[in-house]
Amino acid sequence: MSASENIRIGICGLGTVGGGTLELLQSNRDEITARLGKEVVVTHVATRTPKPDLTAEIPATGTDLLALANDPQVDIVVETIGGCELAFDLVAAALKNGKHVVTANKALIAERGNELFAIADEQGVTLAFESSVAAGIPIIKALREGLAANEIDWLAGIINGTGNFIMTEMAEKQRQFADVLKEAQALGYAEADPTFDVEGIDAAHKLTIMASIAFGIPLQFSKTYTEGISHITPEDISYADELGYCIKHLGIAQRSDKGVEMRVHPTLLGKSRLLASVNGVGNAVLVSGNKVGSTMYYGPGAGAEATASAVVADIIDIARQQAAGASQPVYPGLGYRNTRNDLSVLAIEDITAEYYLRIPAVDKVGVMAKISSVLQAQSISIEAVIQKEPTSESVPIVILTHSVVEKNLDQAIAALEALDEVTGKITRIRVEPFHGEAA
Amino acid sequence: MSASENIRIGICGLGTVGGGTLELLQSNRDEITARLGKEVVVTHVATRTPKPDLTAEIPATGTDLLALANDPQVDIVVETIGGCELAFDLVAAALKNGKHVVTANKALIAERGNELFAIADEQGVTLAFESSVAAGIPIIKALREGLAANEIDWLAGIINGTGNFIMTEMAEKQRQFADVLKEAQALGYAEADPTFDVEGIDAAHKLTIMASIAFGIPLQFSKTYTEGISHITPEDISYADELGYCIKHLGIAQRSDKGVEMRVHPTLLGKSRLLASVNGVGNAVLVSGNKVGSTMYYGPGAGAEATASAVVADIIDIARQQAAGASQPVYPGLGYRNTRNDLSVLAIEDITAEYYLRIPAVDKVGVMAKISSVLQAQSISIEAVIQKEPTSESVPIVILTHSVVEKNLDQAIAALEALDEVTGKITRIRVEPFHGEAA
Repeated sequence: MSASENIRIGICGLGTVGGGTLELLQSNRDEITARLGKEVVVTHVATRTPKPDLTAEIPATGTDLLALANDPQVDIVVETIGGCELAFDLVAAALKNGKHVVTANKALIAERGNELFAIADEQGVTLAFESSVAAGIPIIKALREGLAANEIDWLAGIINGTGNFIMTEMAEKQRQFADVLKEAQALGYAEADPTFDVEGIDAAHKLTIMASIAFGIPLQFSKTYTEGISHITPEDISYADELGYCIKHLGIAQRSDKGVEMRVHPTLLGKSRLLASVNGVGNAVLVSGNKVGSTMYYGPGAGAEATASAVVADIIDIARQQAAGASQPVYPGLGYRNTRNDLSVLAIEDITAEYYLRIPAVDKVGVMAKISSVLQAQSISIEAVIQKEPTSESVPIVILTHSVVEKNLDQAIAALEALDEVTGKITRIRVEPFHGEAA
Repeated sequence: MSASENIRIGICGLGTVGGGTLELLQSNRDEITARLGKEVVVTHVATRTPKPDLTAEIPATGTDLLALANDPQVDIVVETIGGCELAFDLVAAALKNGKHVVTANKALIAERGNELFAIADEQGVTLAFESSVAAGIPIIKALREGLAANEIDWLAGIINGTGNFIMTEMAEKQRQFADVLKEAQALGYAEADPTFDVEGIDAAHKLTIMASIAFGIPLQFSKTYTEGISHITPEDISYADELGYCIKHLGIAQRSDKGVEMRVHPTLLGKSRLLASVNGVGNAVLVSGNKVGSTMYYGPGAGAEATASAVVADIIDIARQQAAGASQPVYPGLGYRNTRNDLSVLAIEDITAEYYLRIPAVDKVGVMAKISSVLQAQSISIEAVIQKEPTSESVPIVILTHSVVEKNLDQAIAALEALDEVTGKITRIRVEPFHGEAA
């Protein structure tokens, strides 16, 4: 596209995000034109379910995605169809045709991004994906550009609105997981198949993307440890509260001498932390850089308009680069010109953390002594214990440990569960102390 | 500079920010090179107070700022000398020589930015200033790029760390303003002359800059209403607390049908708001866009390393644009190609707000009725009242009003102060309800 022409957009998919993008480009047209100095026009829409009322003014509409990827009247392809198969073919074809691509598809970037960025690099075009993480919060820009002067030490985020809504409701109203999930589905926050949200897969996609940009490593979704929230009980939330913590479903990425950690799991978090105040469907990411210290980014993590806000920000960014005469993308897709292949991802057994343990035990003299001695055998020291008056023959013993390597804890848990006095499966939740952290 | 060469930096001033920038470029060199694919090298330092230990490796050092602005071995000039006179001449000279400039100088941008951006535009070079607002928090990028698809409706920020430290200490420990100010000076948070911080001038500089980028208007520092925190008492903080509010020193910019509001003043803020949790020297800016909804940006608002983080992010941004072959800056300095000259800035008398009033009054039957009737005469309705048992002959009456145009409130206050029953000056603090706001 030349500097004087309009920016011509092709949108694939007219679902929540595609429809929201089309709507935003129309309703905020004047604002966008004032920022850009030229107009963004949608020249082509491809959708499997035609919506003629939305596309009456669009010059070309159809159901053939690849036809859109080949359309010479399209400069930037917006992919909002989701999934990793057809979306991959579409994005790859568009990039190979020298078109820029904007996608909201976190699964596609996390699972097949390495291949796609290689094609984009070869072609000298941009593959933009701000909307794939935390919707309208500009966290990709923050990590890749705003904090570019820093070594990022770690980041931790509430990056799945559905999961955070469920955890918030469970905490505020002492409700059971299954019960709140049903309500979330009725409210439209959770899909009919809630697996992606509640088992942490959606959060793991987002964390994988953020970790690559933070540390300069290739995308490695398969190495991200992923644990959901379906096993958390109101009882755990209440014990955590008593110990001064709330429980949040966090994605955590951390760099240490041993390697990189990428993990998504329920986490005990001090109640006075800023992240602990993020409730409902809100998202927030706390990022710690070696120079800037900790910064936090908060906002709505889902929704048609919030996601479209980031899709259109990417469009404007590409258009601004073109208008400035750039012949190559200004920003490397994942933020680094020289990707780091020397940083290995740690297996979950090799991480060091503090833990909350809830141990169902019989109410007998000497139980606590036995448990302590098993922990001591693995060099696990205890930071706090809650042992209530028994209301039945079994009574849970709740323990906070000091730092321990997870594989040692695994052995301790196996040994504890083998004790006659322990009457069931032990619940284990990681604790995030954010040592030295103000926020 | 050509695409294959190093990026050559000249730093003017080796105080907190200049020294921090030099240190950061050295200590994070590998990280920066991995992101950029080329090296950033400091080729020239100009400082009135030479520090040979810091500059031993720099090819050129001197005390002549304009020599640096003319040095053909410098691609990007970093201005950290502060002030608006010499800094203006230096930045203008560097821009006219076709050099990009990075500055942390909020006064310079807020007061003389219109002139400087005009020169930068003419020359096709970048004048970058991320570090001038909220130090290392990438709020300029967020407003200008990340949220570029939105009409920004309003923003509100805690943007002076010194002021927020003082307000936090006053609230947490029921201390007097003057007492905490002395401590802040001893801790190095406040300058020997604290006027810029505690009278809101520093915050007004930052708010002026953010408002221009949010709304696409020229910089208009002289039209920003500025009120400091020195008149706030522990008594006010305690009454506010009783009513469910905290008091924060906020910068607020808002766009309405009537025009644009830019104002810096102490503000009552609901205690459950996310901004209310921002304590100590932390900064945070809450931004409401018409599509994305509310997003918040939090982090350290001051300090050598946090500020240098943003200075170097700007350097990396310029270097990335050059490497991509851009012949013009990718981002308009203030975010808009077409500046809006049709939006006028409202005078403080013309804003509509809710108010906290503390009225010193004699303890007599009928006082409250008189006060109410004065308020009613200006169509001011009352939302809440606190009237304590008198401990002396005078007793404060504390009132929260519903929305009213400020000039009507001014008249009501004048009429109230003329009553025999009112024994002194009335304290007035604006209330920010953030109607419809989740965060």
